[in-house]
Amino acid sequence: MSEHTRPVGDFARLDVDRVRRRGYPEAIFCEGKTVSQVAAIAGALNDDYPTLFTRISQEQAEAVLGVLPDALYDEVARMVVWPPAEPEVSGVSVLVVCAGSSDLPVAREAMLTARYLGRSVELLVDVGVAGIHRLLEHEQKLHDAGVIIVAAGMDGALPSVVGGLVSAPVVAVPTSVGYGAGAGGVAPLLTMLNSCAPGVGVVNIDNGYGAGHLAAQIAAR
Amino acid sequence: MSEHTRPVGDFARLDVDRVRRRGYPEAIFCEGKTVSQVAAIAGALNDDYPTLFTRISQEQAEAVLGVLPDALYDEVARMVVWPPAEPEVSGVSVLVVCAGSSDLPVAREAMLTARYLGRSVELLVDVGVAGIHRLLEHEQKLHDAGVIIVAAGMDGALPSVVGGLVSAPVVAVPTSVGYGAGAGGVAPLLTMLNSCAPGVGVVNIDNGYGAGHLAAQIAAR
Amino acid sequence: MSEHTRPVGDFARLDVDRVRRRGYPEAIFCEGKTVSQVAAIAGALNDDYPTLFTRISQEQAEAVLGVLPDALYDEVARMVVWPPAEPEVSGVSVLVVCAGSSDLPVAREAMLTARYLGRSVELLVDVGVAGIHRLLEHEQKLHDAGVIIVAAGMDGALPSVVGGLVSAPVVAVPTSVGYGAGAGGVAPLLTMLNSCAPGVGVVNIDNGYGAGHLAAQIAAR
Amino acid sequence: MSEHTRPVGDFARLDVDRVRRRGYPEAIFCEGKTVSQVAAIAGALNDDYPTLFTRISQEQAEAVLGVLPDALYDEVARMVVWPPAEPEVSGVSVLVVCAGSSDLPVAREAMLTARYLGRSVELLVDVGVAGIHRLLEHEQKLHDAGVIIVAAGMDGALPSVVGGLVSAPVVAVPTSVGYGAGAGGVAPLLTMLNSCAPGVGVVNIDNGYGAGHLAAQIAAR
Amino acid sequence: MSEHTRPVGDFARLDVDRVRRRGYPEAIFCEGKTVSQVAAIAGALNDDYPTLFTRISQEQAEAVLGVLPDALYDEVARMVVWPPAEPEVSGVSVLVVCAGSSDLPVAREAMLTARYLGRSVELLVDVGVAGIHRLLEHEQKLHDAGVIIVAAGMDGALPSVVGGLVSAPVVAVPTSVGYGAGAGGVAPLLTMLNSCAPGVGVVNIDNGYGAGHLAAQIAAR
Amino acid sequence: MSEHTRPVGDFARLDVDRVRRRGYPEAIFCEGKTVSQVAAIAGALNDDYPTLFTRISQEQAEAVLGVLPDALYDEVARMVVWPPAEPEVSGVSVLVVCAGSSDLPVAREAMLTARYLGRSVELLVDVGVAGIHRLLEHEQKLHDAGVIIVAAGMDGALPSVVGGLVSAPVVAVPTSVGYGAGAGGVAPLLTMLNSCAPGVGVVNIDNGYGAGHLAAQIAAR
Amino acid sequence: MSEHTRPVGDFARLDVDRVRRRGYPEAIFCEGKTVSQVAAIAGALNDDYPTLFTRISQEQAEAVLGVLPDALYDEVARMVVWPPAEPEVSGVSVLVVCAGSSDLPVAREAMLTARYLGRSVELLVDVGVAGIHRLLEHEQKLHDAGVIIVAAGMDGALPSVVGGLVSAPVVAVPTSVGYGAGAGGVAPLLTMLNSCAPGVGVVNIDNGYGAGHLAAQIAAR
Amino acid sequence: MSEHTRPVGDFARLDVDRVRRRGYPEAIFCEGKTVSQVAAIAGALNDDYPTLFTRISQEQAEAVLGVLPDALYDEVARMVVWPPAEPEVSGVSVLVVCAGSSDLPVAREAMLTARYLGRSVELLVDVGVAGIHRLLEHEQKLHDAGVIIVAAGMDGALPSVVGGLVSAPVVAVPTSVGYGAGAGGVAPLLTMLNSCAPGVGVVNIDNGYGAGHLAAQIAAR
Repeated sequence: MSEHTRPVGDFARLDVDRVRRRGYPEAIFCEGKTVSQVAAIAGALNDDYPTLFTRISQEQAEAVLGVLPDALYDEVARMVVWPPAEPEVSGVSVLVVCAGSSDLPVAREAMLTARYLGRSVELLVDVGVAGIHRLLEHEQKLHDAGVIIVAAGMDGALPSVVGGLVSAPVVAVPTSVGYGAGAGGVAPLLTMLNSCAPGVGVVNIDNGYGAGHLAAQIAAR
Repeated sequence: MSEHTRPVGDFARLDVDRVRRRGYPEAIFCEGKTVSQVAAIAGALNDDYPTLFTRISQEQAEAVLGVLPDALYDEVARMVVWPPAEPEVSGVSVLVVCAGSSDLPVAREAMLTARYLGRSVELLVDVGVAGIHRLLEHEQKLHDAGVIIVAAGMDGALPSVVGGLVSAPVVAVPTSVGYGAGAGGVAPLLTMLNSCAPGVGVVNIDNGYGAGHLAAQIAAR
Repeated sequence: MSEHTRPVGDFARLDVDRVRRRGYPEAIFCEGKTVSQVAAIAGALNDDYPTLFTRISQEQAEAVLGVLPDALYDEVARMVVWPPAEPEVSGVSVLVVCAGSSDLPVAREAMLTARYLGRSVELLVDVGVAGIHRLLEHEQKLHDAGVIIVAAGMDGALPSVVGGLVSAPVVAVPTSVGYGAGAGGVAPLLTMLNSCAPGVGVVNIDNGYGAGHLAAQIAAR
Repeated sequence: MSEHTRPVGDFARLDVDRVRRRGYPEAIFCEGKTVSQVAAIAGALNDDYPTLFTRISQEQAEAVLGVLPDALYDEVARMVVWPPAEPEVSGVSVLVVCAGSSDLPVAREAMLTARYLGRSVELLVDVGVAGIHRLLEHEQKLHDAGVIIVAAGMDGALPSVVGGLVSAPVVAVPTSVGYGAGAGGVAPLLTMLNSCAPGVGVVNIDNGYGAGHLAAQIAAR
Repeated sequence: MSEHTRPVGDFARLDVDRVRRRGYPEAIFCEGKTVSQVAAIAGALNDDYPTLFTRISQEQAEAVLGVLPDALYDEVARMVVWPPAEPEVSGVSVLVVCAGSSDLPVAREAMLTARYLGRSVELLVDVGVAGIHRLLEHEQKLHDAGVIIVAAGMDGALPSVVGGLVSAPVVAVPTSVGYGAGAGGVAPLLTMLNSCAPGVGVVNIDNGYGAGHLAAQIAAR
Repeated sequence: MSEHTRPVGDFARLDVDRVRRRGYPEAIFCEGKTVSQVAAIAGALNDDYPTLFTRISQEQAEAVLGVLPDALYDEVARMVVWPPAEPEVSGVSVLVVCAGSSDLPVAREAMLTARYLGRSVELLVDVGVAGIHRLLEHEQKLHDAGVIIVAAGMDGALPSVVGGLVSAPVVAVPTSVGYGAGAGGVAPLLTMLNSCAPGVGVVNIDNGYGAGHLAAQIAAR
Repeated sequence: MSEHTRPVGDFARLDVDRVRRRGYPEAIFCEGKTVSQVAAIAGALNDDYPTLFTRISQEQAEAVLGVLPDALYDEVARMVVWPPAEPEVSGVSVLVVCAGSSDLPVAREAMLTARYLGRSVELLVDVGVAGIHRLLEHEQKLHDAGVIIVAAGMDGALPSVVGGLVSAPVVAVPTSVGYGAGAGGVAPLLTMLNSCAPGVGVVNIDNGYGAGHLAAQIAAR
Repeated sequence: MSEHTRPVGDFARLDVDRVRRRGYPEAIFCEGKTVSQVAAIAGALNDDYPTLFTRISQEQAEAVLGVLPDALYDEVARMVVWPPAEPEVSGVSVLVVCAGSSDLPVAREAMLTARYLGRSVELLVDVGVAGIHRLLEHEQKLHDAGVIIVAAGMDGALPSVVGGLVSAPVVAVPTSVGYGAGAGGVAPLLTMLNSCAPGVGVVNIDNGYGAGHLAAQIAAR
């Protein structure tokens, strides 16, 4: 048996060396795993191994809570966090900007991820570009942030506007909110990759976890 | 022989009835036609049959000018206009908003089309969303327009912002300016179709003629 | 708190300034919102704030009607309208042309939107191009309209034919009716963007609301 | 050596058995072949082996004519035909309908193919749906045809309209005429596959040869 | 009211003129229609108006049978046929070749359509190219057919092989059988459009009705 | 009746000649077949006709087990194997490498297929490239394998790394594990086709059966 | 005239306020601009307005050098930099990792951009995953970097491996190096968006400028 | 300096350890490299380092021959091989099957690659499925091969037929021969991935080198 990995049953191999190697723990992506697999992984954790369970279903979450009753479960963000205590804050601040209410699950997944990786995070909602004044009211808040995460679906135009206003790096996360041509998040993904403002790094569609993790790394000091 | 159409050689059939039926003359789309075909069509026109030659190459334009020496040739817009005199202005005004300098050929094709269909047209350039203040400086001009054409490539975010500011209808024309993911205008096309501001009608990529024509019809009174 | 926006809970921010700024109220796109979010928004409205709830589910609609019992609910168009009284009519008339019976939900969403934004609207159904005589019987009605909305799925060929017959602008809305190659509305969307008749502005697939809104803006006088 | 095939150099193997097996000779698709390969194939033919060289370049055609000086070369259709004499006509008649002048090369390739496979063929040009009256003037001609080939680019709407008017089968060939969304013939291909009129069989984009061959088989009696 | 169309409620307009104009009756595509709409259409038919209801659900079929108790219902092909008596046979014979058992619903829809439009039809199943000898055993049957319909999913290679063996036209219908890359029928559709054998006309994915209709028109004499 | 095929009802034709011709028996792909069709096929087998039922549902599997009670059913791999005894091992060994736990169903289908075609197979799980040390720990095992199957979703990067380490051929099978851009396995499929290490042959997304079969053929001696 | 923008001819409007607002100057994207437009922009600059000309052609570069003879021209990176003196270094260090030699132009564009925005940058070439030991030799260098840019084409697997080794954020830039399926950079783009290692932000295909700019912002202290 | 890699200028790092590690030398992919880079790499080789230069242009090839005058240059396959002597043959035989003459460059690249990696290779041309008898004439040759490479464009149907006839593994390489829908090799790629015959491993479009390399590894004994 390796000193770097910890086997769980015959189906998984926790990368327990990751905190030492990368500074951040491995997360458990729950989609495509059975309820009993997720529960077995929860059972293999111990207190000093902080873990985020992402894209967790109601049924999977209940199984984890059966094993780790004190874990934090956020249904909107589809996350379980263990241990539930927020880590000490370090680094610069992260601001999560959310274009519309339908983008909230992704924005919230990003917020919780960055917070549990040790960053101070604030959330700003419903400031889409169709009413640009709603965003400009918050221009100071945008300037004060160390890193900005922007979650948007539909036209995905918000990161271009935000990126053009600030000097902080922008992490853009397209959401699958929308329909018709370019549905499933393809339209905002392409918009963000083609942002006419520089300073925008893009993660996969609906990948709030990835956005929050990248922002936490950028904000580390 | 029909009273509605006028044959040109054995390859074309001018829809000379179109002005009576629709109020606007047929245009000649020159891509895919030979130089001699375009010249033959020019030769079949007479003074009371106003015509726009669109997407015309240098070589085709010279052939048309050989037949119609007084015609107007705009190299940037790739258009020849016959007869060259601007028609009398009617209807409300059209404002063409152009995101970047590289979008100018499309914006100019739209401008000339609307102008030669009888509208008053003004052009506003280089007001992309990466520097949103450049656009907001012109907010009054946006409010005064009867119809607004927005030409943009890259992220194509400009129509969403403009559409959210005004009550006039917006005709959005994506341009093929850009590269990489969603190149060839696919990215701004999808952005515009998914505009989170209503009131935006989209035409095909680089279709400045179509944008100008639609705007002229909307602006008719 | 801003004078331009009205917060609803911690998840939404109504753009109450929009009527002043754009002349038309904000609509509430209900897909991706929870039932309680939609109800909370309904509760934040008052009589002088006219609102369209679009793409509303049966369950969401019932929640809104619990808060606004007099609101109009159209199940086919998936809309709730508040207040239910039709506004006074102004502007030129809007004609909605619907290719097949399966396109009716989209056509009806367009019709209600234009009507509640203050336009006179008529609906013409089942006049697809496979039996072109069905359309040509109504040629006078097409000529009389101020703006024409065409909703079509499958081959999406109807706007090209209509656009070639009239001088009024055409708003084309592709529907997701169809299957196989280009399913989900991609085939009619591409057809409409490539219309060989000019004067056609396209909105997103199944976007009856957008078509109706754009038509209302065009028809305003 | 096989009795079914005739080798040409070390790079080709003529399917000389095809006329016996299928009733129609093999054609030589010239794209991707070198000039000397095409010439070598021409040299391997003899009088009783009728052959169509398709998609032939100017340079390749000259090489074939060097070997078979009496062969017919049609530059527009990019074809060389050997032997040049038209075969005796049999079967019902074929009508080729061409939406716009830019579709002529494809329409002409279809016409020549059907003619040299022994059918009577007529060509009707520039009758696109943007001026539907141009088509309806020819309704009797459409009703009289045994098979109709329709070549169209852009919106590709013509086969739906034609298919709805006649009882004869329609062979639809999309052309790569057009630009922007669905360019390269994708838009008309999807339109034709989704024709709301039945009785439409589709061949590949720009495949005039395939359209003419299929029509010739359908028209055989 | 027109002599060409018969209204059904306010949602449909039967093209009752189609038999006179095209020689074949209109079919009712049931997807996207409500049960009560389909039943109302059934109620508007009379004995001399033969009709195929295609893509009919179990629930829709029962509603039609409530109105037309003697109608024929084929659950595999998802069709209801009215009147149930097969019409007199005319024209040449149609052979339906089906690559695998999973393609049977589409093949059967094609078979019933051609049969109820008056053709003699035979069905050959499970002769895919992975065991080419299964097909070659039936070579005589292929040569005897007047028209051949080939239904295939997965690699869609069967029409190329069949087309290379016979002189009759081939109607190729790709099915949505398959998974992974090019799923939903895209892979066999592209294969068929690129058939290296000529004489293959393609209809939309899973469009057994369209394949049967086109074959019936080709086989008419 | 043919000596090569055995009919089952009127819907299938077993290719019983395949073992003689190819050395491997035909498999039954169960998706798209009815429960009774699958059961009928099971009933047509006899002891000396070894068969794999792939992509079998719970309900289909129970029907097969009703006919062949001793058959082996593996729910994770969605396979039923008949007869259940493993064949004698021959050829070189096969190693199945699985990037993440969510890829296990595909990896297991590959493993069982190769095993029941007579190969010795071992499985290595959860060795994705995000923790490259997990893979490098097993470098000796990689070098010892005669053929390596790599199953991976998400970025699909594992076959490139494995292929760069060994001289054995690699069979890469992309899985549909993932979401967002390139979902459904498109992203790992493209990655694998573009592997910068040579020696990688790719099968369709989620095609564990195909991967196992190809590996068994490669490993035969 | 605005205090925020400086007009150049009638085609451009320099966003001279950007340094004050964002801390970084505007760049001039030269593709799609004429030689004289680029030269005119160069003429409108003065010493205290640092500018990067990106994607500049040989001919455009010569025109700029005619106006600004001391400017730095890097032909491989297709950039002209003005003024040519490197700014003082601040922030943490940037490491550019380049998978293959063909990716060098993009990697070099990233390197120059970050350097001229004031960062210390090092470049590591030809360390693709097909020979993973080439990368692991440099593990210490990877751990020491403040930000890592990874440029890769083909399978685009390198960012996943690098991201799994370090705690610094990774900026991934897919290149258009490759061919066949997913050509033009689509394959590596999708790979990078689906990276199984977190901490990877993606920019558009071949967007070395964007990668360098984002890295410079991240590395600012 | 590493013992595993050999630097060439500042742009490349030869993986000289690869023969020891993988048993096969690294190839030099020449597209995207400058002429002087390719020449510099050639100059860094010595006699015991066998190397294939792939996708080499005429100009690059001449530069290599300037450095290594005895190297073998195959213009059709776009390869330079060093040293030119064929290695001793080992392993089982490889058969390259080529659907049409236009696929020859890819087939020849595969043939040379396998031959210079030490295998016995034979080539069979112009045996596409439109004339299936041409293939069946060679059935014995197919059965005798140890590995079969199939190169095909257009419909890409050949590997399915070949795979159904033999027990040897099939390496399928789609070519970019074809046009229209699925052009650039997409159609045959999808066909091959969806082959209804098992035992087919696919490489990237036009990747003759990859096909030959994989076949050589499979054929090794």
